[in-house]
Amino acid sequence: MTSSDPFTPIFVPEAVQDAVSGEAWLRAMLDVEAALAAAEAAEGVIPAEAAGAIAAAAPDLDGIGVAARGAGNPVVPLVRALRESTGDAARWVHFGATSQDVLDSAAMLVARRALGPVLAELDAVVGDCARLARAHRGTLMAGRTLLQQALPVTFGLKAAGWLAGVAGARARLRELRGALPAQLGGAAGTLASLGDRGPAVTQRFAAELELVAPALPWHGDRRPVAELGAALAIAAGAVEKVALDVVLLAQTEVGEAAEASGDGRGGSSAMPQKRNPVGAVRARASARSARAAAGVLLEAMAGEHERAAGAWHSEWRALSEALAGAGGAAWALHEGLSGLTVDPERMRANLDLTGGALLAEHVALLTGERDAVERALRAGRPLADVLRDDLGLGEEEIAQALDPARYLGAADAFIDRALELA
Amino acid sequence: MTSSDPFTPIFVPEAVQDAVSGEAWLRAMLDVEAALAAAEAAEGVIPAEAAGAIAAAAPDLDGIGVAARGAGNPVVPLVRALRESTGDAARWVHFGATSQDVLDSAAMLVARRALGPVLAELDAVVGDCARLARAHRGTLMAGRTLLQQALPVTFGLKAAGWLAGVAGARARLRELRGALPAQLGGAAGTLASLGDRGPAVTQRFAAELELVAPALPWHGDRRPVAELGAALAIAAGAVEKVALDVVLLAQTEVGEAAEASGDGRGGSSAMPQKRNPVGAVRARASARSARAAAGVLLEAMAGEHERAAGAWHSEWRALSEALAGAGGAAWALHEGLSGLTVDPERMRANLDLTGGALLAEHVALLTGERDAVERALRAGRPLADVLRDDLGLGEEEIAQALDPARYLGAADAFIDRALELA
Amino acid sequence: MTSSDPFTPIFVPEAVQDAVSGEAWLRAMLDVEAALAAAEAAEGVIPAEAAGAIAAAAPDLDGIGVAARGAGNPVVPLVRALRESTGDAARWVHFGATSQDVLDSAAMLVARRALGPVLAELDAVVGDCARLARAHRGTLMAGRTLLQQALPVTFGLKAAGWLAGVAGARARLRELRGALPAQLGGAAGTLASLGDRGPAVTQRFAAELELVAPALPWHGDRRPVAELGAALAIAAGAVEKVALDVVLLAQTEVGEAAEASGDGRGGSSAMPQKRNPVGAVRARASARSARAAAGVLLEAMAGEHERAAGAWHSEWRALSEALAGAGGAAWALHEGLSGLTVDPERMRANLDLTGGALLAEHVALLTGERDAVERALRAGRPLADVLRDDLGLGEEEIAQALDPARYLGAADAFIDRALELA
Amino acid sequence: MTSSDPFTPIFVPEAVQDAVSGEAWLRAMLDVEAALAAAEAAEGVIPAEAAGAIAAAAPDLDGIGVAARGAGNPVVPLVRALRESTGDAARWVHFGATSQDVLDSAAMLVARRALGPVLAELDAVVGDCARLARAHRGTLMAGRTLLQQALPVTFGLKAAGWLAGVAGARARLRELRGALPAQLGGAAGTLASLGDRGPAVTQRFAAELELVAPALPWHGDRRPVAELGAALAIAAGAVEKVALDVVLLAQTEVGEAAEASGDGRGGSSAMPQKRNPVGAVRARASARSARAAAGVLLEAMAGEHERAAGAWHSEWRALSEALAGAGGAAWALHEGLSGLTVDPERMRANLDLTGGALLAEHVALLTGERDAVERALRAGRPLADVLRDDLGLGEEEIAQALDPARYLGAADAFIDRALELA
Repeated sequence: MTSSDPFTPIFVPEAVQDAVSGEAWLRAMLDVEAALAAAEAAEGVIPAEAAGAIAAAAPDLDGIGVAARGAGNPVVPLVRALRESTGDAARWVHFGATSQDVLDSAAMLVARRALGPVLAELDAVVGDCARLARAHRGTLMAGRTLLQQALPVTFGLKAAGWLAGVAGARARLRELRGALPAQLGGAAGTLASLGDRGPAVTQRFAAELELVAPALPWHGDRRPVAELGAALAIAAGAVEKVALDVVLLAQTEVGEAAEASGDGRGGSSAMPQKRNPVGAVRARASARSARAAAGVLLEAMAGEHERAAGAWHSEWRALSEALAGAGGAAWALHEGLSGLTVDPERMRANLDLTGGALLAEHVALLTGERDAVERALRAGRPLADVLRDDLGLGEEEIAQALDPARYLGAADAFIDRALELA
Repeated sequence: MTSSDPFTPIFVPEAVQDAVSGEAWLRAMLDVEAALAAAEAAEGVIPAEAAGAIAAAAPDLDGIGVAARGAGNPVVPLVRALRESTGDAARWVHFGATSQDVLDSAAMLVARRALGPVLAELDAVVGDCARLARAHRGTLMAGRTLLQQALPVTFGLKAAGWLAGVAGARARLRELRGALPAQLGGAAGTLASLGDRGPAVTQRFAAELELVAPALPWHGDRRPVAELGAALAIAAGAVEKVALDVVLLAQTEVGEAAEASGDGRGGSSAMPQKRNPVGAVRARASARSARAAAGVLLEAMAGEHERAAGAWHSEWRALSEALAGAGGAAWALHEGLSGLTVDPERMRANLDLTGGALLAEHVALLTGERDAVERALRAGRPLADVLRDDLGLGEEEIAQALDPARYLGAADAFIDRALELA
Repeated sequence: MTSSDPFTPIFVPEAVQDAVSGEAWLRAMLDVEAALAAAEAAEGVIPAEAAGAIAAAAPDLDGIGVAARGAGNPVVPLVRALRESTGDAARWVHFGATSQDVLDSAAMLVARRALGPVLAELDAVVGDCARLARAHRGTLMAGRTLLQQALPVTFGLKAAGWLAGVAGARARLRELRGALPAQLGGAAGTLASLGDRGPAVTQRFAAELELVAPALPWHGDRRPVAELGAALAIAAGAVEKVALDVVLLAQTEVGEAAEASGDGRGGSSAMPQKRNPVGAVRARASARSARAAAGVLLEAMAGEHERAAGAWHSEWRALSEALAGAGGAAWALHEGLSGLTVDPERMRANLDLTGGALLAEHVALLTGERDAVERALRAGRPLADVLRDDLGLGEEEIAQALDPARYLGAADAFIDRALELA
Repeated sequence: MTSSDPFTPIFVPEAVQDAVSGEAWLRAMLDVEAALAAAEAAEGVIPAEAAGAIAAAAPDLDGIGVAARGAGNPVVPLVRALRESTGDAARWVHFGATSQDVLDSAAMLVARRALGPVLAELDAVVGDCARLARAHRGTLMAGRTLLQQALPVTFGLKAAGWLAGVAGARARLRELRGALPAQLGGAAGTLASLGDRGPAVTQRFAAELELVAPALPWHGDRRPVAELGAALAIAAGAVEKVALDVVLLAQTEVGEAAEASGDGRGGSSAMPQKRNPVGAVRARASARSARAAAGVLLEAMAGEHERAAGAWHSEWRALSEALAGAGGAAWALHEGLSGLTVDPERMRANLDLTGGALLAEHVALLTGERDAVERALRAGRPLADVLRDDLGLGEEEIAQALDPARYLGAADAFIDRALELA
């Protein structure tokens, strides 16, 4: 289906594409109708055979999007098709429900299912970060603030920071995934047509779908969608931060890391010498897409009365985009990280570019001579000279003062803590 | 291809879907390669036969999206496929160009082509508004500020205001459509591989594509994309404003306008009595999608050096979304407006709901008794009583004072002006 | 200070303005420096007297914003001023910390303090909703989907839905407020200058500030800010939904609710008869401001290496805006709800506008004659006639079938559940 | 007033702060009232003396923001204060106008006035870019795509590209500045209270304010605000692109450019060696603020009927923010560019980092041996060796093939064109 789509496959892995595809939404809507019937049959609202027939139905949904124009949502033609394919059970199809019940519950199903591969990609990124944090616990490099070298760090610590961000965002997504609510309210949120059995049906309905039964119908309370959108944007943002760092480390002039190349990977249509950080680049693009989609979902919170006239309709594709964007970002970053070549020598060489200036703080602390240190730096004098000539330190003392490995503070402890988060 | 997509067809008409589809982008990229070859042949850079072979090629682009992952953009596999299908001309394929030249120029082609149906939908909306403005030049209704009745207006004036907004946004899109620039810069924006023939090739290249030849390559100056995104968001916003008004006029309690119904249009899966303003509702959703996409394009302006590492990649789908969102919004609104039933009696009845309070300003001006008028309104007294009992006006004078048709100011003149904009 | 500001006081209550003001940020930064010194003194890193002097200092911070231009952040001049006012303790000021430690920790302090009044306003809104839900448990009104009357609900149920949304968003904000982390990493996140005492100092530092000690420094992991921004946008969105409903209920043609008027409230500069829903209107504007600010915070997650070169700087004012927008929205809505006049008669009259059509589903269920009901509605026949003439029901049966109070499903149960959330 | 504001002065220059300040808005509103009175007096609608009194009035507007809460906009208390200070003319104050007329016209005035310094800052940036383009026409450096070195360019060409972007965005702002419309519609857009003199009064009113007289009142057509917001976001984006490049060039490992330092500029609270690109960093933050504000303005296009209930209210501060953000971004960037130290030696050294690989395309073109070149690059062989050993070129030929100055294509022509845009 996407064989002629030149863009989507670049940014979204198949598993996530599938999970947010039209088919996935239709499957989810049919699952919702079946779960509703099953719940209603269990509560004696409709006949058990009807529920069986509805669950077994395989309606023809070809062209459903076009058929949905008249009603403005696909549930209307889906219910019609379902009725046409369920014989005597037709009258029990969609009983007591409204379009929004089906679409909202389907949205939560799609989300739960899509979060499977999305979380798997985030797991993979967390795994990458953990591996890098362990492997490069002692790999010295320059810490950089405002893109200026600041103080020594280790690449392991950098990876640990990446890990903390991605793992934290993942934790929130997991939490929300476990709390995705089914929606059932009937035409205006009272479940009127279910009489006094509304809450019981809702309970069973949610259980059928492995969703949570909400305290109240949430047709007018869009937090389930908005919270999810925000969490996906935040996961995408955590990924985007790593991707940005990778792109920066891979710069020709920095050269501290490179994504895998070969077989056309990272190549250019014009420049044979290039080794582009393609995974990170794609991740950055996807993250922006997720963020924009989350913006639509946040804006959609303000809907009119018992069903919004447009805001609701804006959610469906935006939710898919948010899932695809976050999942795609994690996937592409994982591709980049999993084949990442790290160059400790280059890291060390870059660290030494400034002749020890990164250890100025260290020297100032050791010697208590901050002013002398600052003067020396401003004059462009190597710190070793200052230590030797002005302050009379011996060579071994000088070496220790200027050894970045001796000025890493709590880096190791922080790496350990991050690894616990993985 | 969209037969199983339950959403896109609701929001985007076929012509716009096609114009921003994967096929359309691929067609545009091939057109760009052909135009480049033609321009280079005309300038003697490559053999004429090569240009012919490139123009005639029909490469197999199946699965191009997956193949594009390695490079992060589809031009790399497209050029490979093109070379495989052009025999001896292969070496002249893509000569002197870089991926961004092809994608950016293709983006402008896609935009120009898609703006055809997008502008046609906007034309249709402008036509609808003009028709309504003419037909309802004298149809009295309440003007509403903060959703409170304020002063009499006519429905023709309201439609004239809609017209002005949509026509103005259309004018900007037309202007931009006429200025879409081709992009040709080569690997880093110098056109180095074309020697001194770069500008001449660019000139011909742009002419081949019916695009404008830019003063400079714009690989790092994303205004062409960002301006277009903003203009599409503004067109969508102008449409959204009308759609919002339609939704409000169609409220059960207002009932001044209704979209066409019948054949499942405007129906509900649960409520047979409903007549939903489906066109306006869909338009509102699409407009939000266009706005979010425009946000991505605005953010993408800040790209790194000679080609952005992610921001650029975020543009492709966002541009399609912005075009689809704006075009879809106009299309859906046109559907709503073209079948709009206007109810002048209900408009008049609503206008009379407040017992003349909407004419308070008129009465105060006529009588010079603003304080008395305000007191009466606060006390809930009908203005006719005040005029008769307190101010001693005769019945004819009272009727004139309280006749909304006599208090329309420049409404007619404004309608005329708006019609000139159509 | 804001005496000449014609806008901010309209949208933001004094308590929130104060809590996010420049003074509040400066106070927080000084508190952070004092807490750092106290923690370091407790851990034996700096002398206890120095910590005392730093805590007692009252530096002259006049014009600090201008002085901050050179460094791009206000901590640099603040530290300078602090050193100038702490005598011998000057050398221990800011010891081991970097600007970002101070600003990020101050941001969390500002957030915690501002969330006080923000949560108080949300509490007030929750209280308003609870009161309305209780008072109007039995007040019948039309439920509306896509702004078309759909089925009967009660105003109590509507208020219960509002409550659930706002209370849920409040719960998330409370959760985040209890988890706001202090930031301490030193120049590049290693706490190098604290040697092996970094984690212990961090622990005490956070405790001093009544913030949480994070597992790792979060200079590169902006979730604390982004999560807060998202939660504020969601709280604002929950408020905005209510405000939108109030504006719609207050429409002249609907007239089911009105905000308090008098003393210039809700008045117009031109129209004496107006009674504008000013609280809800202001809430809607503020919510948009909060959402936009949250967008800045989400975008800021992608920062470069150990300190972002611009993204970080975009957070400070955006965080204040997000807090002010959410707090202001809740405050304005509370103003609107606390004086809300509800008109049950008008609600009932509106419910009856369609001659029982809202009970079509009920009648169809009761009689099993959905087709007959639909035909009647399409023909515009009153349902009572159908029941009497076509289906032979008696008057009492007809009255019951068409009594909206008998078709409210689980409304009561849902109200109870919502009240538990309050 | 901003003496305790630690943030605004960092990002917004005084002239822009002043131009969008509360005082500036109040001044603009008073100017609008005066212009209205003058226009009405000229058309014989009100007495000439009244217009004089209104123009001369100096009402006490202290605390106006708080007083504006009741009406939700500051025009109501402003008109009240104006009436209190105009004696007999009081009744002619604000005659025929509504709050929105005053605020919208004032917004356009504020925009026109603020665009003065905003455009001046953009002029300064354009001037900086022109100077750099001229001075570095021949300064060789690496062109970089996806942050990988790609092909040689000149720093002059890079600056020319910056220039084109900023000058283009400036042109659009100038165009919009010349088309800012006055707004006059009266309570519902009919100018009813002006009888048949509405259009004539509007014409004079606009002329008084040096604004354009619109074809129709634009209370419901928010393009003037939205177009301006979009153009400001685009100007900010063009600036942000330059700022990003500056930050990247200033990286320790790149070192090709540095902002001025000294006197605390670019310093750090912890690291004496740092020379942060503070102007560019601040510019990036401000650009994000402008973009977010533009998003609010685009969203505000969809307003209800004759005056939006919240969307309109969201515009006022967002417009100020968009102006401040764009102006602040340009100002900060100018600060960075005006003191920019460019290091041609470092540029050249970086260009040579890859041993001629950037000239691979050149060599392949010259020799027609693309495959051999690619093989050599993959094997890490210096291109000079390939040319000498495999292809038998002489040393002079080799030197020419590998001379980046001989592979700059149309760079010079492009610089000339850009300079014409300045």
